[in-house]
Amino acid sequence: MTRIKDIANKLGISISTVSKGLNGANDISEELRQMVLDTAVEMGYTTKKMKKEAHKKLCIFIENMDYKSPEHFGYDIVLGFKQAAYRDNWDIDILPITPSFQQKEKYDTYMLKKGYFGAFLVGFALQDEWIAQLENTGIATVLFDNYIKQNPNVAYIGTDSFEGIDAAIDHLVSLNHKKIAFLNGSLHSMITEHRQQAFYDSMTAHHLPIMKGMVANGYYVAESASYFVSSFLSKGATAIVCGNDLIAYGVMKECQALGFRVPEDVSVIGFDDLPWSTEISPPLTTIRQERIELGKCGYAALHSLINHVSISKMLLRPQFILRESTATKKVPILK
Amino acid sequence: MTRIKDIANKLGISISTVSKGLNGANDISEELRQMVLDTAVEMGYTTKKMKKEAHKKLCIFIENMDYKSPEHFGYDIVLGFKQAAYRDNWDIDILPITPSFQQKEKYDTYMLKKGYFGAFLVGFALQDEWIAQLENTGIATVLFDNYIKQNPNVAYIGTDSFEGIDAAIDHLVSLNHKKIAFLNGSLHSMITEHRQQAFYDSMTAHHLPIMKGMVANGYYVAESASYFVSSFLSKGATAIVCGNDLIAYGVMKECQALGFRVPEDVSVIGFDDLPWSTEISPPLTTIRQERIELGKCGYAALHSLINHVSISKMLLRPQFILRESTATKKVPILK
Repeated sequence: MTRIKDIANKLGISISTVSKGLNGANDISEELRQMVLDTAVEMGYTTKKMKKEAHKKLCIFIENMDYKSPEHFGYDIVLGFKQAAYRDNWDIDILPITPSFQQKEKYDTYMLKKGYFGAFLVGFALQDEWIAQLENTGIATVLFDNYIKQNPNVAYIGTDSFEGIDAAIDHLVSLNHKKIAFLNGSLHSMITEHRQQAFYDSMTAHHLPIMKGMVANGYYVAESASYFVSSFLSKGATAIVCGNDLIAYGVMKECQALGFRVPEDVSVIGFDDLPWSTEISPPLTTIRQERIELGKCGYAALHSLINHVSISKMLLRPQFILRESTATKKVPILK
Repeated sequence: MTRIKDIANKLGISISTVSKGLNGANDISEELRQMVLDTAVEMGYTTKKMKKEAHKKLCIFIENMDYKSPEHFGYDIVLGFKQAAYRDNWDIDILPITPSFQQKEKYDTYMLKKGYFGAFLVGFALQDEWIAQLENTGIATVLFDNYIKQNPNVAYIGTDSFEGIDAAIDHLVSLNHKKIAFLNGSLHSMITEHRQQAFYDSMTAHHLPIMKGMVANGYYVAESASYFVSSFLSKGATAIVCGNDLIAYGVMKECQALGFRVPEDVSVIGFDDLPWSTEISPPLTTIRQERIELGKCGYAALHSLINHVSISKMLLRPQFILRESTATKKVPILK
């Protein structure tokens, strides 16, 4: 169990300062107080005061996504949501969920039965049963990376894929690459569709041809690479943009296995900026999603919906992160 | 000058309750306290406490838009922004602005000189000097209905035009209309472009042809109608969707002047739901923008940017408002 001392150690401040932060004393700054509270939430510490008012419940449903440790994509999203929601004294339940559970239980009845005021849905697929039910739900619901038309009770939050992919292409064009391939993630995902469209839009805007066989859909896992990379390279690709960091990791390994150097022979760009992307070789150039902020946006949108403000979409800017997996296109040496 | 008594009268509550609300007493509900504060802001009343901490300044720049009285489009947007910002003790300056002023003063220098932490820009056109400068600004800036690519210091807030126009076409199709014209507003506006694209997308999704000469750009004023309505009608239009309520008002007048009845002969739909749209004859079917909420979103986005959360877009759902300017398409009687 986390003690006040652990929070003090983590932040490098005194126990009495932590205690002041937790109890809302006036003689520390608002910024420090917030940092103490955020860290307390992060470390699983709850004060009596936090518990006292927590009769109100929200939930986060998670599907198809790892979130239990900090290197997983979902971890910071859940954390950011909790940090923001605890400030307003909500109780939060985290509920991993399966397609078969969705077949068995209706979304609205489940929410009412459990007494949840609203939900944040993370990692759902377009064909999920509950996604179809959300078209008519009366319950405040925020979707990460999914969009429901017309229903004023449902909002979509995420990172702007169009800006992200465009920044990747901008970068590759500045390095003289022209034959750019795109290895995207799974079909049946709105985000896959957005990133694919973004690739077409950005290539067109940069006056680059989209060559046959240079765009493919794998899955959002590293193993996708083995099916497509050799074909991309045989068609002359000098750069490969990937649907996420896991795919990019697989692509780098596959290039190296085929005797191509990254970045000297092939440039590779990921998407997400997962914690391990600095630690692989070479460190990955990627498009960062601010996951803590995404979680906070998720709560902000849900808070708005509960207060009858019909947020439709809330998107964050992605951030282009330059590391070492991209380089200027090699000029062929004439023999 | 507004007195506590005026607020009490407006809300139909006692002076002591207003006083409790203004002073943050514990024995009234949070909802009531918020309503008192919002009404105080609306009526121009400020307490000493509100003033005391108000050393922080934001501004709203307004161009091309009336905002000084409640029937103007900008009025509630400014009010919503102020209501939300005053809760965080910001001072707000409202600054009407011209293109020539923008030629004279650089945006960033003006903001720094005046000590503003951030700005909300309402009613700017794509070709405005400051819009170009925003691509590189370091100052937290929120645009109503305009979008700047890539800059993490700038956010776009507005109402989703695509959903709004789609709801209008849905409605007309349910009333059997097929020959639908679209009289849009001024060129050189992002919103005009969105609504035009939305019209094409929605007509295509409904398998309806977009007939030649049935889409036109006027200006966002009633007088636009006289140039286009007779041509639409001569081509057989039975319904006219308009870029805003002012255009719709002009279209209804013009139809009537040409001897066509609204809605019996021609259905007309506006966009915005301005306060007078219930009072014209017939009352206008329209797409409502929640303007108070837009103002609040503007502040929420600016608050995020100031705290280095890079909001890119925040969109509200529009609301379809059914009144009497639309009706089932007349079936021609064979003679």
